[in-house]
Amino acid sequence: MPETVTRSKFEYDPADIWVLDREDIDALEIGSAILGTGGGGNPYVGKLRARQAIDDGFTLSVLPLDKVPDEACCVSLGGIGAPVVGYERIREGREGLRCVRAIEEMQGFPVDLIVCEEIGGSNAMEPLIVGGMTGLPVVDCDGMGRAFPEMQMTTYSIYGHTSTPSVMCDVHGNIVIFQHAVTELFHERMARACVVAQGGGSDLASAPMTGTFLKKFAIPNSYTQAVSLGRAVIDAKRRHADPIAAICERENGRHAFSGKITDLKRHLRGGFVVGEAMLSGIDNHHGEDASVLIQNENLVFTREGEVAVSVPDLIVVLDIDSGHAITTEMLRYGQRVAILALPCHPLLQSPAALEVVGPKAFGFPDIVYRPVAGG
Amino acid sequence: MPETVTRSKFEYDPADIWVLDREDIDALEIGSAILGTGGGGNPYVGKLRARQAIDDGFTLSVLPLDKVPDEACCVSLGGIGAPVVGYERIREGREGLRCVRAIEEMQGFPVDLIVCEEIGGSNAMEPLIVGGMTGLPVVDCDGMGRAFPEMQMTTYSIYGHTSTPSVMCDVHGNIVIFQHAVTELFHERMARACVVAQGGGSDLASAPMTGTFLKKFAIPNSYTQAVSLGRAVIDAKRRHADPIAAICERENGRHAFSGKITDLKRHLRGGFVVGEAMLSGIDNHHGEDASVLIQNENLVFTREGEVAVSVPDLIVVLDIDSGHAITTEMLRYGQRVAILALPCHPLLQSPAALEVVGPKAFGFPDIVYRPVAGG
Repeated sequence: MPETVTRSKFEYDPADIWVLDREDIDALEIGSAILGTGGGGNPYVGKLRARQAIDDGFTLSVLPLDKVPDEACCVSLGGIGAPVVGYERIREGREGLRCVRAIEEMQGFPVDLIVCEEIGGSNAMEPLIVGGMTGLPVVDCDGMGRAFPEMQMTTYSIYGHTSTPSVMCDVHGNIVIFQHAVTELFHERMARACVVAQGGGSDLASAPMTGTFLKKFAIPNSYTQAVSLGRAVIDAKRRHADPIAAICERENGRHAFSGKITDLKRHLRGGFVVGEAMLSGIDNHHGEDASVLIQNENLVFTREGEVAVSVPDLIVVLDIDSGHAITTEMLRYGQRVAILALPCHPLLQSPAALEVVGPKAFGFPDIVYRPVAGG
Repeated sequence: MPETVTRSKFEYDPADIWVLDREDIDALEIGSAILGTGGGGNPYVGKLRARQAIDDGFTLSVLPLDKVPDEACCVSLGGIGAPVVGYERIREGREGLRCVRAIEEMQGFPVDLIVCEEIGGSNAMEPLIVGGMTGLPVVDCDGMGRAFPEMQMTTYSIYGHTSTPSVMCDVHGNIVIFQHAVTELFHERMARACVVAQGGGSDLASAPMTGTFLKKFAIPNSYTQAVSLGRAVIDAKRRHADPIAAICERENGRHAFSGKITDLKRHLRGGFVVGEAMLSGIDNHHGEDASVLIQNENLVFTREGEVAVSVPDLIVVLDIDSGHAITTEMLRYGQRVAILALPCHPLLQSPAALEVVGPKAFGFPDIVYRPVAGG
């Protein structure tokens, strides 16, 4: 579909461009699911859409962060809404493309690069697909190094980018422009309310960033990291080794708990999946109780009544046998799971970042964030 | 504040322009409250704001509908949200002005005339105030001839105007553009969700209409009607005559019931005030029961279990002594009220209109609309 191609003034050395193939996408599905910490949109549906884009002849490509021109117009985008909607309703497919086109129309010149809002879940795939449709590479970075439930929780917003004017496009063809928000949190609130009215799952593209800003404040190498992580799981399974150990080793994380899901509270509220999974220990953790609190993503892991891991560190729920991440909508009574604690990127650990993505920001004023120690 | 004045290319014969004074505003408060059928925003707060605008030196003026140039760019605006919010939170004051400015910026040329979305309640005042600030007259018409709770319920939308791209501005300074809605109902849903996120009371200006369209499909003479109606009430009271009889005579309506409010269910849901007022008959109606169903406005009047009056006709709840309309938020247990049934404008009675503003559109599939007979 050549009519969709954007005419950016920048060209890149083909040697710098990483063109993703189906194996990369398979690995990205696994890696982005792990980094998604339960959310970020259904990785399986995302994979199918990315494969379809490749089959349709689109080139899904990634450019290293340090190759981004300072003056490039970089548009970050992703899906917004309750991930569960992505399971139950097929996308129209060009929501993200319409967002980019609306931004180009507003500003009167082309977008140069597509950027990932969050590397977790299907939101790792969405920028690649839009990049394919527009003929633009996706920068090897993201704004979270994981998934978070709300839009102001990107390093972009935390470190000073104003994400409006932004564009939200839905499956029906509705287009909403958040022209000006007095705070990043207001932007989130208005967009969240609107996405519920649109049916619970849309795409949103934020106001463009410069390459200079991106190189300073984006979480680097997200696609490289997610694909490598996926490959590590695939390789471990091929070698009949323990994929969970492979993930912990690669991410400097910790296998925090093994347990069986004994109770599950989960419901849709204000466009989010919220709830709690209760766990009863197995193996080394027999006789212990634990729980995971959820808002789209896994937020807080409690063991024997004590908070063991919290946002912004990554709490990953894995199927204990396959080593595959289980998203919050796919949690079921009786599942045997491993809980992994992975350290977040240092950009999420500053006082400014903890104001936005620390436990207090999620309504847990009494939880003090204690960074995960690896091993 | 001359810097706020819009430079329209049209000029009008000063003899055609009706400049409203404080007495006109006092009468408009009473008349628009009656036509508001319980909603449209707090008329008293609207009056205070209109008075303030006059005291600030703004000219609040009205142009007859038949003097509107065919090619004029006419922007309809009003408050959106639950009327009760207008009682509890003071406006910033320039929400509507910001809406007009955003539309001018989008289209690249000035707006020529301000138009009223609904003549009921404070939404009669808001266009006048914005007209004063921009230096533009307000057209003597509106889109409802009363108040309705939802945006798609204007004759503008019913008869084919696409109300997007529209602009919503709130008290905080947030600006949202509904660039494209696939249906008028989707526009309403997205805007309604967004206004709740903004705190429940904002201004919205719809996509401009041409003078040609407006002259064909607007409800004519709304300001003349509302001010005359208010004057009729004031005059009747001055003469110690019955203001209720004066209203019925002027509007060709009917005094349908007299009763005391014996029970009241009322709550905020999805940005609307919804509920029901139960009435026990007094005077001629002693021993009879009645009720009024509410969604921001009075929707259905039931007497002795039978539907007596329904949308789109006007159900007005008046204080039986003063003859002043009681808005749905001001209904109280024990109030002695008169229920008036006034016929709606014929533009609201067509099959196309009844699809949008008839009983079915409000969730009453079994109620057949029977036009009010005067007398």
